Order: sequence, then structure tokens, then C-alpha cells
Amino acid sequence: MKILLVGASGTLGKRLFEAFSSRHEVLRASATRSDVLVDFTDPASVKAFYEQAGAFDALIAVAGSGYIGPFSQTTEEHFYKGIRSKMMGQINLVLHGQHYINPGGSFTLTSGILADDPIRGGAVLTAINCAVNGFVLAASGELVTKGVRINAVSPGMVEDSVEELGPLFPGHTPVAMHRVIDAYVKSVEGIRTGEIIKVH
Amino acid sequence: MKILLVGASGTLGKRLFEAFSSRHEVLRASATRSDVLVDFTDPASVKAFYEQAGAFDALIAVAGSGYIGPFSQTTEEHFYKGIRSKMMGQINLVLHGQHYINPGGSFTLTSGILADDPIRGGAVLTAINCAVNGFVLAASGELVTKGVRINAVSPGMVEDSVEELGPLFPGHTPVAMHRVIDAYVKSVEGIRTGEIIKVH
Repeated sequence: MKILLVGASGTLGKRLFEAFSSRHEVLRASATRSDVLVDFTDPASVKAFYEQAGAFDALIAVAGSGYIGPFSQTTEEHFYKGIRSKMMGQINLVLHGQHYINPGGSFTLTSGILADDPIRGGAVLTAINCAVNGFVLAASGELVTKGVRINAVSPGMVEDSVEELGPLFPGHTPVAMHRVIDAYVKSVEGIRTGEIIKVH
Repeated sequence: MKILLVGASGTLGKRLFEAFSSRHEVLRASATRSDVLVDFTDPASVKAFYEQAGAFDALIAVAGSGYIGPFSQTTEEHFYKGIRSKMMGQINLVLHGQHYINPGGSFTLTSGILADDPIRGGAVLTAINCAVNGFVLAASGELVTKGVRINAVSPGMVEDSVEELGPLFPGHTPVAMHRVIDAYVKSVEGIRTGEIIKVH
């Protein structure tokens, strides 16, 4: 199948390309340094991306970030920065992509463990991960009539990130990267829809 | 105690004023026609509101809305309209209010059943209700160190709204208004924190 991979230049994106490209046609997309450039915070860029990519069978989004810092100093703008990126960036990909995806296709978005299990300073990420999960639940009921599926993968702290993130995630048991990859494979090649596939 | 009621001019706001004002000092706030005016989509207005209201013991927010309409025509702007209102409006009230609330105080926000149980055309509301619930979960762990609680009430379709909303909510069992009021009373006068109090 033809898979669009948004966020292909990141750590997880590179691993997903390795996992899928041996048996699928994978088009790598990201803000810089990829087959196709897309700024998913900009609806015009998202539309141009789909025009260039053409019809496809699966979209995987592994892009977006959000502020982590003291709650007492968290501002509206900290929230909006995350909203424009990981929340609306991914939602934009579906709002526009629904008009280009083939019947039988699927969207796979990325939320994260903070939706269920907050850390100190992580209110922005908890809120936007929950919004992504909610969007997936609602959109699944809309897309089913087109024969299109949508899921979110919600990874825990991945082993590869322990050195960088460990101190922010006290008591979180790291998860193996291969389990996270498996979740994306299940979403793309499996039959589930409207699921939050938790890897934690 | 001194309670700030944001959204006081709405149907639910009026019922909450009746329920709380016999035994508490309740300051009614809304965008128009209230003791105090506040535009909760505008951080400057929220800050001015707290400056005017002074220290308080409880804030209840029952304001905000979001688009309902065909998913295939839903745009980024439909999402942002709901984000600015029900999501960031309520979050703004907490981000600023944390600096004015008395120890032992509480915030009570409002999400809704669509967070768990989507309807056709309701993806915006599902996403923003989930974001509000997530924010409450994360913020509860931050505010506990100040002795401050935060909960969300998540009402189902209230009996009073059946005529207007019933056709949009097929198979949803209406809930009695007095149960919804009870949930706010439990949040404000009880001891729970970080809870999504579901009335459905």
C-alpha cells in the first residue's frame, strides 16, 4: 500500500520508515529534509501536500510537541503552541486527508501516555494528547461510512528517550521501541478503528 | 464561601446561582448582563476579572460552546472557535485564577458526555471536552501542593435540552437537571480532586 509518513525525519519516524518500507511504498514527509515538505500547522501547506502526494492508503503522523514547564508560569501561549502543533497539526492532516484517502485506508495519529498519566509540568501535553484521543474516537464514527479507519498510538516513554526524559517521568517504566513500532503496524495493517492503542 | 460563577447568565448558570446563593456569596460573571463582565477568551479580560473579584474560594465555569456540523465540511477554524471558547476559555480561568484562589479552594470546570460518547458531527466538542478533562487531571496534581482542588463536571444531555438537542443525540438518555446541580455541589463542597464527575 501507499503510506504517507508525516514526521519522517524524527527518531520514531526513521524507525517507522525502516519497518514499513520493505513491503510498502512509503512517502516521507516533514517540515525539513524529506521526500515531501509539509508544515502541518498551516492548512494551505497540508492541502498542497495532499495535492502533491495524490491518493494514498495510509497516513501515519508522528510529529508535534508541547511545552513542559512550571504550571504556575504556564501561559495561554504555551498552550496554543502545542495546540497548533501536535493537536491541530494532526487534526488538520485528517480534515484535509479525508478527501484524498482511498476507501479501505487508515489514519494513524500519535498521542502519548501523558493523556492518562500526567507528569509535573506537563498539563499542555496531557490536554492536547487527550484532545487527539478524543478526536480519533469521534472521527472514527464519521469515517467508517467511507470505509476508512482511524486510530491513535499512545506510547509511553520509549527506552531510547530515557536519558533525555527520564528525570521528567519519575516511576515511568520505559517501553521498548519495537513495541511502539508494532502498534503502528497493527493500526495500519490491522482492522481496528477508533482505538487508542496504548503502549505502556 | 465566596464563589465566582462564570457563565451565570445561561440556563445552567441560573440554576447553579439558585443552588449556591442561599448559603454562599456568589458573584455572577458572564460576557454580558452579570454582576461582573468577563470575556474568558481574552487573557487580559480574565486577569481584570480576577483583579476586580479579589480572593475567592471556588470558581465554577459553565460557559463555552463548540461547532456541530458535517465532519466532511469541518474546518480548522471550526476547531479553533471551540478551542478559544470552551477549551482555552476555561483553562485561562485556571491559569490566572491559581494566583488569586484561597488555600482550600477549588475550581470546577465543565466538559460533557461527548468526551466519551461522540455524536455525528460532534468531533470538535469531543476533542475539546477531552482536552478539558485532561487538563483537570494534570492540573489537579499541580494544585494539590497549594491545597487547591480541581474537578470537571461532565453532564449528559440534560432533560431541559431534549427538545433542542434530542435529534442530535440519538439514544442518549436525558439526565435530570438536579443531578447535574448535585455534581457541582459535590465538586465545590466535597473533597475530591482530579475527578471527572460524570452525570450520565
